[in-house]
Amino acid sequence: MKLADRVLNKDVRAVARLITLVENGDPEALPALKALYPHTGRAYILGVTGAPGAGKSTLVDKLTSAFRSRGQTVGIIAVDPTSPFTGGAILGDRIRMQRHYLDKGVFIRSMATRGHLGGLAVATNDVVHILDAYGMDIILIETVGVGQDEVEIVKTAHTCLVITVPGMGDDIQAIKAGILEIGDIFVVNKADREGADKTVKELEIMLGFNTYPQKSWKPPIYKTIAVKDEGISALVEGIDAHLSYLKDSGELKKRKLNQTEREFLEILQHNLMQQAMAKIGDREALTRLLSKIVNREADPYSLVEEMVKTWFA
Amino acid sequence: MKLADRVLNKDVRAVARLITLVENGDPEALPALKALYPHTGRAYILGVTGAPGAGKSTLVDKLTSAFRSRGQTVGIIAVDPTSPFTGGAILGDRIRMQRHYLDKGVFIRSMATRGHLGGLAVATNDVVHILDAYGMDIILIETVGVGQDEVEIVKTAHTCLVITVPGMGDDIQAIKAGILEIGDIFVVNKADREGADKTVKELEIMLGFNTYPQKSWKPPIYKTIAVKDEGISALVEGIDAHLSYLKDSGELKKRKLNQTEREFLEILQHNLMQQAMAKIGDREALTRLLSKIVNREADPYSLVEEMVKTWFA
Repeated sequence: MKLADRVLNKDVRAVARLITLVENGDPEALPALKALYPHTGRAYILGVTGAPGAGKSTLVDKLTSAFRSRGQTVGIIAVDPTSPFTGGAILGDRIRMQRHYLDKGVFIRSMATRGHLGGLAVATNDVVHILDAYGMDIILIETVGVGQDEVEIVKTAHTCLVITVPGMGDDIQAIKAGILEIGDIFVVNKADREGADKTVKELEIMLGFNTYPQKSWKPPIYKTIAVKDEGISALVEGIDAHLSYLKDSGELKKRKLNQTEREFLEILQHNLMQQAMAKIGDREALTRLLSKIVNREADPYSLVEEMVKTWFA
Repeated sequence: MKLADRVLNKDVRAVARLITLVENGDPEALPALKALYPHTGRAYILGVTGAPGAGKSTLVDKLTSAFRSRGQTVGIIAVDPTSPFTGGAILGDRIRMQRHYLDKGVFIRSMATRGHLGGLAVATNDVVHILDAYGMDIILIETVGVGQDEVEIVKTAHTCLVITVPGMGDDIQAIKAGILEIGDIFVVNKADREGADKTVKELEIMLGFNTYPQKSWKPPIYKTIAVKDEGISALVEGIDAHLSYLKDSGELKKRKLNQTEREFLEILQHNLMQQAMAKIGDREALTRLLSKIVNREADPYSLVEEMVKTWFA
């Protein structure tokens, strides 16, 4: 049976195999991705981001249990764009998730960057589609840090959770530019620590300053103590409320269109670069071109312009 | 006179104007960039990265004074990839640099991301070339944070300085994946704070674990108190030593080739996307394509494949 059919038939090993192909940028994945695409678009995608040490993995663990307890299936993608390797930290965190490994309604996968140009965002999207077609009701994308790459990855979500902890004042300042705008729901985790209410206040003030367009949704702030399972059910209610808002306001449709555009452009870019590299030839041919530039016999702008013009003639 | 000629004639207003064109992605910049390219390749490019609050701007300020005192001209590019706006933080820091504004041997420019796909790295490279052709001996690229984007930007430098401060244990852990490999020189700034020696030790241990290829250069760690001008001259000696190493080992040539490759590929990617968007047509045509995907009448992989095949026929 073909890989795509096996995925649709709930073969978990086929899912794992296909994701590995995607991660490795193996063209063998393509026929399966094409075949699965018509079966996608049903999952609800939840992004979880925040500074390292904010307790994202524990929170994801608890959210997973909550979703499972009401019968929803959950796919988890843990992404670490900062690590050129399979992230050690992520693997460590995953140990905490072990109890879900025996649950057929949960699929967990870690992904690390392979250093490809824009590769991780494309790969993450592909994995979302695979888990969507596989029938996961909710797909959680968890990122390790809060850099620009994480922001890009979390943008693929329908709802974005930003996790912080008490006493991260400076870090909040540092991350606010990119993060405040993408957060639909904020969580102050480890809320039994000193300064939790102060952090909530600071967040409220910053969100108040945040004069971004869609004002119809006011991002709520939840306090949780994930390790003690405290505040999780209120947070789940908040997540449900955001999904209702997305549907009722037409925002979900808008987000899906934006997400499709980003994905389309990324696939386009990837494909164009592959074609271009094939046109240039082998590594040696590329090195010859580069030597001309390094020796200032040619400038890269004119060289590229001429090449692309010939190809697109 | 043409913009490029004015830059070569040391017209600082032409430099500022050209950088603005580059920042805005204005195609008018292209003829000037092409004309300037043969006049580039002489500047020594120094990247400065580190967590927010590490005192990078002050350090850049002091390094600038040190370089100026021995007659070298200095270009400073302060890059903030996290901010979709011109970074407020950067502007604030720049006030400290004001005394250099009257110095014709110093050119300072802040750059923020414009949200283009891979745009900031390309734009930063272009600005490096402009300041190089303008005759700046040393070009300092200062980044605001330590995300993957900053790592990409700092990779354009010949020498990379990583700035940290005492008591950033957790942060060092968080950033180490991407940062340790690119750091040629490490600086523990604000070294009069408690725990400076401990931070140096921690860095030494982490650098010891760091089993990356080029082992011929062992990254030194310097302690500085930039606000008091302490440790700066030792740091400058360390920078000089690294430049000597780069030249003697052939590593400089290698880095220039790698850097040219990255730049070439980025320009290629940018150019290909422009051509592709022109082929697709206007915004309406793109939206029609996207709607087909959103409605699952087509999958993005096949659609892109067919389009690109036609263009490259």
